[in-house]
This record gives sequence, structure tokens and C-alpha cells, in this order.
Amino acid sequence: MDNERLLKQIEFIIEIDKAKQVFRQNVVIGTKRNENDAEHSWHLAIMAMLLSEYANEKDLDILKVIKMTLIHDLVEIDAGDTFCYDEKGYEDKEEREIKAANRLFNILPPDQAQEIWNLWREFEEQETPEARFAACLDRLQPLILNYNTKGHTWQKPGVTSEKVLKRNNIIQKNAPTLWEFVTEIVEDSIQKGFLRK
Amino acid sequence: MDNERLLKQIEFIIEIDKAKQVFRQNVVIGTKRNENDAEHSWHLAIMAMLLSEYANEKDLDILKVIKMTLIHDLVEIDAGDTFCYDEKGYEDKEEREIKAANRLFNILPPDQAQEIWNLWREFEEQETPEARFAACLDRLQPLILNYNTKGHTWQKPGVTSEKVLKRNNIIQKNAPTLWEFVTEIVEDSIQKGFLRK
Repeated sequence: MDNERLLKQIEFIIEIDKAKQVFRQNVVIGTKRNENDAEHSWHLAIMAMLLSEYANEKDLDILKVIKMTLIHDLVEIDAGDTFCYDEKGYEDKEEREIKAANRLFNILPPDQAQEIWNLWREFEEQETPEARFAACLDRLQPLILNYNTKGHTWQKPGVTSEKVLKRNNIIQKNAPTLWEFVTEIVEDSIQKGFLRK
Repeated sequence: MDNERLLKQIEFIIEIDKAKQVFRQNVVIGTKRNENDAEHSWHLAIMAMLLSEYANEKDLDILKVIKMTLIHDLVEIDAGDTFCYDEKGYEDKEEREIKAANRLFNILPPDQAQEIWNLWREFEEQETPEARFAACLDRLQPLILNYNTKGHTWQKPGVTSEKVLKRNNIIQKNAPTLWEFVTEIVEDSIQKGFLRK
């Protein structure tokens, strides 16, 4: 086959299979197996389909939100998952991820490399309603999984309810009904011993 | 919290976490681990973003295609994965899956249960361009994974190149350029001993 464009697209599709081996801090409900980036991204995309009514800003472009959730963690194929409460890991996170984006997205034909790059930057920069809502989902999903696995990730050293609420703070401003749910989950998790105060 | 609507949506989001434990016949590239439905669905959704230019029918509603790919296998949480070359398993597949859809989708508020049901039926009935293109991706993705894992699933008893081509036949009618790629992969797989003629 001499269809260079299609061969590049297929090469990218093969390359991103690696996201199924980038493991996150939280586990899949009912198991001791860490969730991977592909599973996490799929879960967020369905949440985007179901929960957009709670976004403060109306008339969201849901297609864009879903696309962002699907691609937002691809850079971790090269850069790895940085634990959200790991301050040291965050120091060079952006540098590592930009390098990863450059390598990975440029496997695609230029127009599509640009599209994925733009979606990823928009998500990271948090300056549009779609990026902010995608970020709310990216915070809410691990909270739901942690609550349903007796606070699996929250048991790690240094995690407190104050830090969890701070991490989820973007939900307070952008989806108040979801924030009400978050604060109840956090309160109940403290009561149940899943999370330190 | 007495927001019954949100609590139903959250219950569904927790329930579909189980898709991460429904294992398919093929393995993740570079591993001996079977791929699960969440990973497969995520992969298809990104393929929908990248490959729609090859669909015969233009002006596809890409948001609908992506939604279909995200939810098309949820019924397997109850009904299990039916191996596509297992004729016996196919006998009661529809019955098992309709029962599963009724239980699972109805966890959601009625309007969203209906939306997911409609998307799933549209995918199954294959009567719209969006459903046919989603089905093309659902065939192409395991073919790409099998080719890149030395024909892992194709080594199972009863699988031949003739059956693989028949299974992928929907691509021939709906995305001719992708079909050209499929036939080359199949030919090369026979040459390399990944697939029996």
C-alpha cells in the first residue's frame, strides 16, 4: 500500500495501544488492578455524554469535550503518569509532556497532528468552558473510583481531605451540583476512614 | 444528597466500571494480556476521530459515531463477550444482550436510558451511515491488533483467512480504502504464518 496518509494514521493507532499499559494510581472497582489510561479516558468520555447538564457554562461543544477526554493522557505513553499529589513529579511534568506530544502527535499527518495538539493544549490551558468541564470529569472520576475502593489511593502517604478538596476545586466553580456531591463523598469518606482529615 | 437524577447517573457510571473486566479474545500489543471492552471502545472512539475521511458516505455525524463506539459493548457486562467466530455463541447473543441492555441502561434517568438504547440499537441494526462506519472500525481494530501480535486470535481453532475477510466484509462496501488495507494485511498475515488460508 502506498497510501502514506493512511499508513501514518495506522501507525499512530498502533502506537497509542501503549496507553493500555500506562497505569494510574487508582484501581478498578472490585479488583486490586491499577486502572490504565485507556480505561480512564473511556470512562471520562461516557461521563461527558451523561453529565454535561451540570456544567455552569451552557452550550458546551460536547464533541470537543469528548475528544479532549479521549486524548488528554496520550502524552503519558512517553511521560508516564504523574501522581497528582506528587509535588516533585509536577516540577518537570510540562516539559516531559510537551516532548512526548511532539513525538507522538507528529506520527499523524500534519493536519491531524495539529488537531490533536490543539485539543491537548486547550485541555491543559483550561481557558475554555470545554477544557474546564473536561477537567472537572478528570477530577470526579478518580474520586468516584476511590470512594468505591475504600479510598485506595487516599491511603497513600501525604493525602488528606484538604488536598483532595483542593484538587477538586475546579468542580466548585464550574459544576456546583457536582461539587455538592464531591463534598458529601469527602465527608462520608472521612467518617468511614477512607480518607484522613 | 437528594438529587435523584444525579445519583442515578453516578450509579450507572459506577456500574459500567465493570466493562474494564470484560475480556476480549485479542491481546494488547506487546503483552499476553487480553484486551478489555473499555480499552477496545476507547481505541475505536479515537479511530472514529481519525479515519472518517475514508467512509463512503460523507457528512457523517462524528459525534454519533463516537458515542456508538463508546457504548456499543456495554451489554457485554452482563452478556459476556461472544467470540465472533463462535457460531454457537451467536445463537442466543441477541436475546442475552437485549436483557442486559434493559437492566443496564435503565439504571440511568429515563431520557438518558432511551438515548443510550437508541444508540445501541442503531449500531446493532446497521441501517445508518454512522452505524455502518462504527461497525467498520469495530472490525478493523482487532485486525490491526491481531496483525501486530502475530495473529494471536487467528491461531484459535476454526479461524481462516476466508472467515476473517467475510467478517470484515462490511469495510469493503463502506470504506474501500480501508478495505484495500485489510486485504493487504490478510495476504501478508498468510505469508507470515499468522493466519491459515
